[in-house]
Amino acid sequence: MSAQHASTTSTTGAHDLPAFAGRHIGPSQGDVEAMLQVVGHESLESLVDAALPGAIRTDGPLRVEPAASESAVVEELRALARRNQVMTSMIGLGYYGTITPAVIQRNVLENPAWYTAYTPYQPEISQGRLEALINFQTVVSDLTGLATSGASLLDEGTAAAEAMTLMRRASKVPAGAVLLVDEHLFPQTKAVMQTRALPLGIDVVVADLTSVGSATSLRAAAGDRDVFGVIVQYPGADGEVRDWRAVAAAAHEVGALVTAAADLLALTLATAPGEWGADVAVGTSQRFGVPMGFGGPHAGYMSVRAGLERSLPGRLVGVSVDTEGAPAYRLALQTREQHIRREKATSNICTAQVLLAVMASMYAVYHGPDGLTAIARRVHGHARALADGLSAGGVEVLNESYFDTLTVRVEGRADEVVAEAAQRGVNVWRVDADRVSVSVDETTDLRHLDAVWSTFGVSGSTSVPIEDVQWPTELVRTSEFLTHPVFHSHRSETSMLRYLRRLSDRDFALDRGMIPLGSCTMKLNATTEMVAVTWPEFAHLHPFAPAHQTEGIRSLISDLSAWLCEITGYDAVSLQPNAGSQGEFAGLLAIHAYHEANGQSQRRICLIPASAHGTNAASAVMAGMKVVVVKTAAGGDIDMDDLRAKVEQHRDELAAIMVTYPSTHGVFEDTITELCGLVHDAGGQVYVDGANLNALVGLARPGKFGADVSHLNLHKTFCIPHGGGGPGVGPVAVREHLAAHLPNHPLSAEAGPQTGVGPISAAPFGSASILPISWAYVRLMGGAGLTRATQVAILNANYIATRLREHYPVLYSGHDGIVAHECILDLRDLTKRSGVTVDDVAKRLVDYGFHAPTMSFPVAGTLMVEPTESEDRYEIDRFCDAMVAIRHEIAAVESGDVAVADSMLRNAPHTAKALAGKWEYPYERSEAAFPVGVNAADKYWPPVARIDGAYGDRHLVCSCPPPEAFEG
Amino acid sequence: MSAQHASTTSTTGAHDLPAFAGRHIGPSQGDVEAMLQVVGHESLESLVDAALPGAIRTDGPLRVEPAASESAVVEELRALARRNQVMTSMIGLGYYGTITPAVIQRNVLENPAWYTAYTPYQPEISQGRLEALINFQTVVSDLTGLATSGASLLDEGTAAAEAMTLMRRASKVPAGAVLLVDEHLFPQTKAVMQTRALPLGIDVVVADLTSVGSATSLRAAAGDRDVFGVIVQYPGADGEVRDWRAVAAAAHEVGALVTAAADLLALTLATAPGEWGADVAVGTSQRFGVPMGFGGPHAGYMSVRAGLERSLPGRLVGVSVDTEGAPAYRLALQTREQHIRREKATSNICTAQVLLAVMASMYAVYHGPDGLTAIARRVHGHARALADGLSAGGVEVLNESYFDTLTVRVEGRADEVVAEAAQRGVNVWRVDADRVSVSVDETTDLRHLDAVWSTFGVSGSTSVPIEDVQWPTELVRTSEFLTHPVFHSHRSETSMLRYLRRLSDRDFALDRGMIPLGSCTMKLNATTEMVAVTWPEFAHLHPFAPAHQTEGIRSLISDLSAWLCEITGYDAVSLQPNAGSQGEFAGLLAIHAYHEANGQSQRRICLIPASAHGTNAASAVMAGMKVVVVKTAAGGDIDMDDLRAKVEQHRDELAAIMVTYPSTHGVFEDTITELCGLVHDAGGQVYVDGANLNALVGLARPGKFGADVSHLNLHKTFCIPHGGGGPGVGPVAVREHLAAHLPNHPLSAEAGPQTGVGPISAAPFGSASILPISWAYVRLMGGAGLTRATQVAILNANYIATRLREHYPVLYSGHDGIVAHECILDLRDLTKRSGVTVDDVAKRLVDYGFHAPTMSFPVAGTLMVEPTESEDRYEIDRFCDAMVAIRHEIAAVESGDVAVADSMLRNAPHTAKALAGKWEYPYERSEAAFPVGVNAADKYWPPVARIDGAYGDRHLVCSCPPPEAFEG
Repeated sequence: MSAQHASTTSTTGAHDLPAFAGRHIGPSQGDVEAMLQVVGHESLESLVDAALPGAIRTDGPLRVEPAASESAVVEELRALARRNQVMTSMIGLGYYGTITPAVIQRNVLENPAWYTAYTPYQPEISQGRLEALINFQTVVSDLTGLATSGASLLDEGTAAAEAMTLMRRASKVPAGAVLLVDEHLFPQTKAVMQTRALPLGIDVVVADLTSVGSATSLRAAAGDRDVFGVIVQYPGADGEVRDWRAVAAAAHEVGALVTAAADLLALTLATAPGEWGADVAVGTSQRFGVPMGFGGPHAGYMSVRAGLERSLPGRLVGVSVDTEGAPAYRLALQTREQHIRREKATSNICTAQVLLAVMASMYAVYHGPDGLTAIARRVHGHARALADGLSAGGVEVLNESYFDTLTVRVEGRADEVVAEAAQRGVNVWRVDADRVSVSVDETTDLRHLDAVWSTFGVSGSTSVPIEDVQWPTELVRTSEFLTHPVFHSHRSETSMLRYLRRLSDRDFALDRGMIPLGSCTMKLNATTEMVAVTWPEFAHLHPFAPAHQTEGIRSLISDLSAWLCEITGYDAVSLQPNAGSQGEFAGLLAIHAYHEANGQSQRRICLIPASAHGTNAASAVMAGMKVVVVKTAAGGDIDMDDLRAKVEQHRDELAAIMVTYPSTHGVFEDTITELCGLVHDAGGQVYVDGANLNALVGLARPGKFGADVSHLNLHKTFCIPHGGGGPGVGPVAVREHLAAHLPNHPLSAEAGPQTGVGPISAAPFGSASILPISWAYVRLMGGAGLTRATQVAILNANYIATRLREHYPVLYSGHDGIVAHECILDLRDLTKRSGVTVDDVAKRLVDYGFHAPTMSFPVAGTLMVEPTESEDRYEIDRFCDAMVAIRHEIAAVESGDVAVADSMLRNAPHTAKALAGKWEYPYERSEAAFPVGVNAADKYWPPVARIDGAYGDRHLVCSCPPPEAFEG
Repeated sequence: MSAQHASTTSTTGAHDLPAFAGRHIGPSQGDVEAMLQVVGHESLESLVDAALPGAIRTDGPLRVEPAASESAVVEELRALARRNQVMTSMIGLGYYGTITPAVIQRNVLENPAWYTAYTPYQPEISQGRLEALINFQTVVSDLTGLATSGASLLDEGTAAAEAMTLMRRASKVPAGAVLLVDEHLFPQTKAVMQTRALPLGIDVVVADLTSVGSATSLRAAAGDRDVFGVIVQYPGADGEVRDWRAVAAAAHEVGALVTAAADLLALTLATAPGEWGADVAVGTSQRFGVPMGFGGPHAGYMSVRAGLERSLPGRLVGVSVDTEGAPAYRLALQTREQHIRREKATSNICTAQVLLAVMASMYAVYHGPDGLTAIARRVHGHARALADGLSAGGVEVLNESYFDTLTVRVEGRADEVVAEAAQRGVNVWRVDADRVSVSVDETTDLRHLDAVWSTFGVSGSTSVPIEDVQWPTELVRTSEFLTHPVFHSHRSETSMLRYLRRLSDRDFALDRGMIPLGSCTMKLNATTEMVAVTWPEFAHLHPFAPAHQTEGIRSLISDLSAWLCEITGYDAVSLQPNAGSQGEFAGLLAIHAYHEANGQSQRRICLIPASAHGTNAASAVMAGMKVVVVKTAAGGDIDMDDLRAKVEQHRDELAAIMVTYPSTHGVFEDTITELCGLVHDAGGQVYVDGANLNALVGLARPGKFGADVSHLNLHKTFCIPHGGGGPGVGPVAVREHLAAHLPNHPLSAEAGPQTGVGPISAAPFGSASILPISWAYVRLMGGAGLTRATQVAILNANYIATRLREHYPVLYSGHDGIVAHECILDLRDLTKRSGVTVDDVAKRLVDYGFHAPTMSFPVAGTLMVEPTESEDRYEIDRFCDAMVAIRHEIAAVESGDVAVADSMLRNAPHTAKALAGKWEYPYERSEAAFPVGVNAADKYWPPVARIDGAYGDRHLVCSCPPPEAFEG
């Protein structure tokens, strides 16, 4: 290399871009030029000009701060971190100090093999996290004493809200019946349920149920109305461990169901809700090793008694078998879900909290039942020591019994006590002017008790009792839990490490290869974006900590909100929704509230195109709307004639239209501006689903081209990793007229407008601890980098469409055959002619070392491919080569040379075990296992063969199967 | 679980042990009891009493601080970290600020798949790190312009010392010739060479060689003596870029060789040493993304011109082929090394710096030649801006040319300038009272230049030139480098991440399964022990930073030193040696110096048992001693009669004996006390090699049972991970009378006694940045935990010996067949009867999912097994089951049922590729690939079949082979 040549200063070759853009974006400048040639455009600009309607184009560059280098951004994050003051939290209320075992932090939370994985829709290549999730289900099911647990919900508040609607669906009590809520529920849980109940017309009655002892007193507590469901906290927010047996019996007598919001750690010592009559249990698994993180993300949970499993919201992992007869995990009973049932779904929940559920389950694997119980006893012992010290010093502790939380009377001095405790480094909770509560957790030691004691001017014991619990024997747990060997086998760190590695090795994540999932935007989750998440200054903040202690994270949230407004063209944003589904719900609630505020409460019709994501319809129903479907025209666009007709028909009741842009067909529809005008003219609001925002950033702004509200998916466009199926973050962004109707929070004035619709997540800022990821992405890319990313995402998709079009028809496209950031490969005709299905192609791609594209969405019998900007030309070509080779395999079936049942396609994926066994296929082992492009030395082997999903639904098993099942 | 039962508070079941001991030690209390039954002892105590001679037993518990919990220890480490003051270092001298790409930090340095791997002696299961190392060799070879590079040395100072001895070996100039050292070498490099030269009788002449232009002036500079080698720094310590062509020509004319100590980053812009006549290049790769870490570890390098490759010290990776004809990497030319050549080896170096070499090589892969050059130009541009600003302000810059370092005249004000710069957050270097030097690096920006300018009261430019270099065109690099595709293919983070994963997946490390390597102690490297290593407060300290800025790390070093003294029974310790071999050398130097100080310089004989580690003999030679071998008796112990005879024979010249205890045969020899007495009586010193200290901690102390000096291996007993073949740490511990002769350092008064033997590593405290690992281990375990670990290590070894004895003879043992912490399985008889070799068994173990035990050391034809305390019973049983199953496979060969050539043993390891191909073996594929205990879904597949090492030595290729080599 000559000194002359060496003067190049950028490694990307694109001279005005920040260095990080060259790391985030896959194709180099040279590759971009070569790919443009293939696509037939001179420049990225000309491609984009051809792709996007001129009318919606942004007029200038994005006004975000100029990009900074990776090391500079880490320094900025450190400066923000220093502005957070990490105190010892004794606030409780569902968020507790917990010790994340280092081996789990490093090898799950900080390991891309876990955090870059996708939702396990392709179960054959997701067996590792599916096993972790079935462990999670077993933990929840065992501890709550209920038959079936789901694979996590979003948080305790939304889980309780889901329990409300589940009880409503399952109860035979007629409409008009109320939900009866014990007043000792966590305040944020009550508020989230209230937000959810309102649009559904459910009346929520809050009362003290402590002394309810009969059906009569239960009805009396409900204001003598019918009751479809009862929900109680166990132990209560005040710390009291109450016996709810009588309430449960009374509820059942009147035909109501009973939900216990229960603390998993307390359940190691307290009688399981399923044993005292609860039908449903909900809660959070946060304190099982997941940092508080200023409110999230954590895995909420729900478990139900036998008979209710088909009513469970969210994901459920079950055991089935593969074609070789081996047991294999996969998502069960998917027909309950919104992607199939749409407005008839049990819930709009899509993303779960997989990464956090994995962590919580591994915490249980690591500690086992003995270890968990020991931790609970230690917590309880410290609470007893605390209570004894306070009582002995003459402080009035209001509890008769408790697990970890004490409520103390302070007669008008609550603010003073909170402030004095803070001076000593401890946050306690102000219940009201006369009471404070103090919670003990795994991290509490005598120093913290001393701080509390001295706050109250008393002194306590210097040792901590760890004998028996002090509540009534009827509530002392006697049943076993976590008896499965997995909770007894990995007590050494070495064994734990190997278990984590073994499971992650079964899975295919972004660290192995492309995951070209249409509509899911599986882009790079850069390490620099991830590093701050596990810093103590972000990880160890309680969501209800005083605002002055959380300046750093709130400043970060404020930056990110401003940037998202700039990028989307909206005026206000709420980061509270902790999944896209929640963002949708919040956005529709804002529309609903806006119409109400304008005296237009009859506006309840929500128009939704036939091709929409299933969550759209499910969310609309949750927001109290009625769904009317708009047809798709022949070319895949919205049928504008049908739209006009539907708008006209529902003119006075039109609340909104929900569209995705670019469409779920991967096309920039020219009619978007016209559509917005039509709906606005009729008095409706335009909701643009931000799922495909990755095709718009820097090029067009929904808030400026006619939309009123959007939710975004930070786990798509803004680099939060998918975590194997969550966490997601789904901010909702609105124009000025809707800003007053964004979510807020009863415990945090900063979280939203006073006039807002209430909280839709348990925490004021939702999954705050992962927001540094998106913040860092924007800081690293700057406006030019973000825009370039969008351009290259569109180029990559068009390059694939161009390369594959001669082999597979590309179903929809805009002008000149141009697609947006994804393309749909139409296999329907091939399937008809050959019998080879999209499933066959998807599974065969595993043999080639790829995760399949999105199957049969939005059109059955197709594959939707989205490469994102992060895939480089090498990987994209490898994918195209594989698809072409597969096309030749299909051709052999088409021509009759190979029977479909005998084809490599139908028998895919091929396992190593099959390769070693008797070989009865008409093709060679090497053709099966090492097709073109696969290096034998680096082959990813699926751990199971194709899974029979229906078998598992017929024989539902949703907790850890016995080890013998895996023998042979 | 009943509430009663739940009162267990420890998860280990061993009540007085810290919780961490239950995580570090594999077997639970229940397992320990069951295993004791198998071994035939009632308790760990009785087993240990039977194993160890009573005479050497420790009388009380270890007096180290009581153990603390994992979270408490992390807090303590954070407190220590806060006591380090991280300034911007502009000190240079071989240690520079550098940006570790986050993707490399997280996925190499913080990933157990990389850091828990062993030295690649089993190349079939080490292909990933071998590829990384061959990349490293290519980087060094390309940049230095020399044909062959080794796979890393310990640091620049020792690499220069190795170059000295290499030149001595290779030069034909007669004995008595001198080494000529240019005075512009880094001071620590000169000092390390001096330490090494003295015992070898090599005279080192330091002179300014700048104006040497002929053979005559060269000889004149050497005081008119013969010269065997010349070493120059390029660029010089003063920053000057000198043209050494004339010196090289003159040196060659007089028969001397020339070594360039060269800066790899500068070489992207400067003519390669190989192009101006250097025969050898040495240096460090630290600034290729490896943090300064208060001095190390970093990968030193050495490359040599064609013809010298067989003289290279240390490890060399080469390309060979496997039995399927595929290219495969493995260590080349091993017959140069100490484990084969003993006292005739090219060097005593054993451990390399693999993990750091991997990082440096990945930095080059990540940046590519363009990126590296851009970084170099940016550095140079900043240096130019700095120089221009200073000169313009009237400050006298002494350099005529420079790359990154300026020397500035300050006339008596050096201390003042250093202090003023520090006030502004920058450390500059005090050359002498009248001069300071300032170095620019990858992390430097204008803020740092401003700080320097304002220190000098001048102001400089606000922009930085990045055009041409400013040195003479003859020294402007014109040759290409890093043209291999691997340096051009992974520019996006996604691609880089996948490359790292792909390579690590080819390897077998502790995160997959047991590595039962006798004498290597592959125990748990707990995450909590590892976390502090990458904290900026430890990672970003310059080794020559002022002492008051490094209080935290020095306090940690002081704690650790005290604990090691307590554990070993010695009085003083030096943590400077950065590998066991260096510790040995330091220990022997201390003995040598002690005898000299006593007027006994004739004591040069070092007795070494036949079974010793090869390094012992090599180190003795380096320390100027003469090796006399003591025989092994029939039972494997030292032949005491022979010892007595040898002691008598060499009574007046006896310097020392070097023994390993327990012996390399894995036996506690009863004669150790007698041996110490015999040697002491003859005036000799006793050196106990600490390789097997894991069998002694808490039970016996070498410093108390008769030894005078030991080196320890922190990467064995004290949990520093092996890193795939380094870093190691080899502290030397001595009794009081030797303390004055420990290593010290010219640039750090705190590093050792004034009377010391000089530095033996470049940095004052060697590999300081990884000492927190061992510190944390001792803090987490406490005395009771450490002792328990030793007991269980002995139990685990005896359990294996007991289970396998009926299948394979256990070669040596003590009373009642008890072994120490490892056992030797004797296959010689089986080999004779069946033809099945230890190699066959080792490779077959790969099929069973294990790393092989140590092969043919200390006895050819045997396997030495060391499970360590960290393996649990499950894994140990899995290993024993595999060995038993393999014994049955051998039996089938013995009986003649199977020909050895056709056996699974000889054809092991079996690759997936082989499984998919034509199958010509008389056994089934499934028997080959999935023997008992192997779960097909979780199978580890070796990426290559058995490697033909000899082929590679005959066809030596030591840099990246072209991609086509891997096709097909």
